[in-house]
Amino acid sequence: MSTATFGTGRILKLVGLLVLFFGLWFTPVPQGLTLEAWHLFAVFASAIVSVVLNVFPLFTSSLLACAIVVLTNTLTPAKAYGAFANAIVLLVVTAFLVSQSVVKSGLGKRISLYVVSLFGKSTLGLAYSIFITDTLIAPGFPSNTARGGVLFPVILALANNSGSTPEDENKRRFGGYLMFCGMSSLAITSALWFTATSGNPVGASLAAEQGLKIDFGSWLLASCVPCLLVIGLLPLLLYRLFPPGITATPDAPARARQELRTMGPMSRHEWITAITFIVMITGWVLAAPYKLNLTAIALAGLATLMITGVLTLHDMHEQGGTLVTFVWLAVLFGMSGQLNEMGFMGYVGERLAVGLEGLAWPMAYVALLVIYVLLHFGFVSQNAQVLALLGVFLDVGVKSGVPTHLMAFALLFASSYFSVITPQGGSQNIIFVASGYLKQGELYRLGLLTTFFATVVFLVVGTPWILWVAG
Amino acid sequence: MSTATFGTGRILKLVGLLVLFFGLWFTPVPQGLTLEAWHLFAVFASAIVSVVLNVFPLFTSSLLACAIVVLTNTLTPAKAYGAFANAIVLLVVTAFLVSQSVVKSGLGKRISLYVVSLFGKSTLGLAYSIFITDTLIAPGFPSNTARGGVLFPVILALANNSGSTPEDENKRRFGGYLMFCGMSSLAITSALWFTATSGNPVGASLAAEQGLKIDFGSWLLASCVPCLLVIGLLPLLLYRLFPPGITATPDAPARARQELRTMGPMSRHEWITAITFIVMITGWVLAAPYKLNLTAIALAGLATLMITGVLTLHDMHEQGGTLVTFVWLAVLFGMSGQLNEMGFMGYVGERLAVGLEGLAWPMAYVALLVIYVLLHFGFVSQNAQVLALLGVFLDVGVKSGVPTHLMAFALLFASSYFSVITPQGGSQNIIFVASGYLKQGELYRLGLLTTFFATVVFLVVGTPWILWVAG
Repeated sequence: MSTATFGTGRILKLVGLLVLFFGLWFTPVPQGLTLEAWHLFAVFASAIVSVVLNVFPLFTSSLLACAIVVLTNTLTPAKAYGAFANAIVLLVVTAFLVSQSVVKSGLGKRISLYVVSLFGKSTLGLAYSIFITDTLIAPGFPSNTARGGVLFPVILALANNSGSTPEDENKRRFGGYLMFCGMSSLAITSALWFTATSGNPVGASLAAEQGLKIDFGSWLLASCVPCLLVIGLLPLLLYRLFPPGITATPDAPARARQELRTMGPMSRHEWITAITFIVMITGWVLAAPYKLNLTAIALAGLATLMITGVLTLHDMHEQGGTLVTFVWLAVLFGMSGQLNEMGFMGYVGERLAVGLEGLAWPMAYVALLVIYVLLHFGFVSQNAQVLALLGVFLDVGVKSGVPTHLMAFALLFASSYFSVITPQGGSQNIIFVASGYLKQGELYRLGLLTTFFATVVFLVVGTPWILWVAG
Repeated sequence: MSTATFGTGRILKLVGLLVLFFGLWFTPVPQGLTLEAWHLFAVFASAIVSVVLNVFPLFTSSLLACAIVVLTNTLTPAKAYGAFANAIVLLVVTAFLVSQSVVKSGLGKRISLYVVSLFGKSTLGLAYSIFITDTLIAPGFPSNTARGGVLFPVILALANNSGSTPEDENKRRFGGYLMFCGMSSLAITSALWFTATSGNPVGASLAAEQGLKIDFGSWLLASCVPCLLVIGLLPLLLYRLFPPGITATPDAPARARQELRTMGPMSRHEWITAITFIVMITGWVLAAPYKLNLTAIALAGLATLMITGVLTLHDMHEQGGTLVTFVWLAVLFGMSGQLNEMGFMGYVGERLAVGLEGLAWPMAYVALLVIYVLLHFGFVSQNAQVLALLGVFLDVGVKSGVPTHLMAFALLFASSYFSVITPQGGSQNIIFVASGYLKQGELYRLGLLTTFFATVVFLVVGTPWILWVAG
């Protein structure tokens, strides 16, 4: 993690990065874009590349990018810093802080022992239990970030109790496998249910502009077959792609039952944590009809845990890593949003889409979907891409002759399952990424392969299914 | 710091707090205020009282207050969270992170040894050296928060090198004395120079509406006598009010010189830190004419320290306390700003000012100044009070027959020196308060006495001086 050592390789990468940055910065601005939008793209792209090449960590890249865009008047201070006040960013930060209580109180250990006692004969059994739990609770969560805040502490406790820590290279993989299962489960279950993420209704409202009416039932009918297929196969696929080290643990269920007996009844702090989470979850489920703010519910939960002493100021003083996450997430989230607002994202989408006009519709359909998914490399937020590109892509698809409902559902589902394509591709990933169980390279490789797999399933199985049931 | 223990005293306080909160909440809304403004006041006042009574720490009170105002629709989420993106709040956070480099690199130790070698025969000598240094650099700093970011690490190193830590009850007082000297020095030197804080030009522009032209020279002429008197006496007064434990240290200068020789020449990290601070300070000085954003300069400085390895991600991971400060400062800063925007502050000021009309002008002058200073108990930002109340109070004073320039200068100077009346009365205090060298009770006591002393000096000496030179 140190940035103090400058080897020859790192200096070469740094020179390459500077060439990329200044090359983009001084490239003549493409017609249809403002100078500011192009400069913002130069900074944003360089920041992402510097992280991917491991020249600077996310935190340092973000600081530098933020300082550059403000000092060059590319963005006003208010716009550059705006995302520090974004409710979703604050929800991620608060979810981090709240989740400590599940670990600290012992509740996470208890739940994980219980899960192990039921499914713990194999690592694969645990992975399936994560996917199944998430699938069942997803329709009640209008925010996959909030859902991540519930799943993460349980997965962290599962990893910890098996002796897997980010520092121990051998045992790290077990926790890393479960962490990636959590991330990819959130991605695919968000595609399954209309109400599992806030982007779905947003996307559906864009599809409505093309005359398509989508509700809870018609969404589920179209999504169920491809989604359940991915849910059924993905734990197994990830198990092959990223062998977790620990595989068969035949004695684990009995040991877990023994340990549960040793733990005795639930402590006061466990009860408080459990009740706080149940109330928070109820609040999150009721958030949409009662117009409750998700972040405010999480803040109230954190306050409750502080007042009751489950968490203390001392615990908060150890959350410097959360501050690091807060800073880079806010900076990149803000820049991505501004790129969108300045018309850069729409510009790229239109350029690409225009090139496809005139193709036969099945060709255009596949090309549009694949490009739409790949473009998520440049987005830090799913909602931003939905708002920026879904309408344009749907429009181009319909004009190319693709059946409206097919194009719409394909893009809508992709807007959920592409979230793992990069570690920052969805805010719900962040909490899992920051756990440190997976390296940047692994996250990009697994993310790309998982997204590829999901895209293939949706193209090969989803396409005929959607044409059949929703035609 | 623990919030887990609920003794009888604490339960009584908690009941009192609930009575206060619900009493205010359900009190009929005074005419001229909206329901939302009144409810926001009920939450804000209860949060401040809960901190003063030590029912909850600032962090917990802020979480609760923020959750309540959003869930009751008193504020929209965007307004309640807005100050997380405020440039001044972010400058405080960044100044915290940057200041670690001065301590870690050894530069702070070197500077403090140098200061000790010159003035270190007594604690009082050190205190005067803080005030004098600040007085000399202040006209070049348009932000007292930024100036605090420079002074703080040096004071911290002075305290550390004398073995004074927040945890050691006996030796704590030495560091606490120097910390409060730093805070109150920032307060009084901001009154001395027109360009020492951003609030001065703002206030002067409000005075200009009453036909008064104020520039760098006329400001200094009016401020110099009362300000220099306070600067000359305050270190001594604080020394009596808060005996620092360690007093005479006759061998310290020789020991410091010896230790400086042992340290040898400046290390690479010290040089980088020194140059980074010089560049940042130059940037801050040039910020106004070149329209540079203070926070972006600080972010660039932090990025430089990260890239060069003076600070590492590991250092950042230990900054959980900075996150705690970030959260409560953003919440309270935001609520104070919203109270102002909703017209509550102006309402209170007008009510009070109206009551004074008809008094003889010297009486009105004293009453307006004292009320203006005391009202700062309710403000988390100096600029907010200047914007909310300075114009109203000046107007009432002039109508009551107070000479315009006297009323204007009295209010303008007060807007700087009242910043220590509460620990949160100025954002530049926060970094000193968070060091932990002073307890909440001590901060309020010293703050009130210091503000009282400054107010008396400005009334008794400042009034005839201003009438004489600016009449």
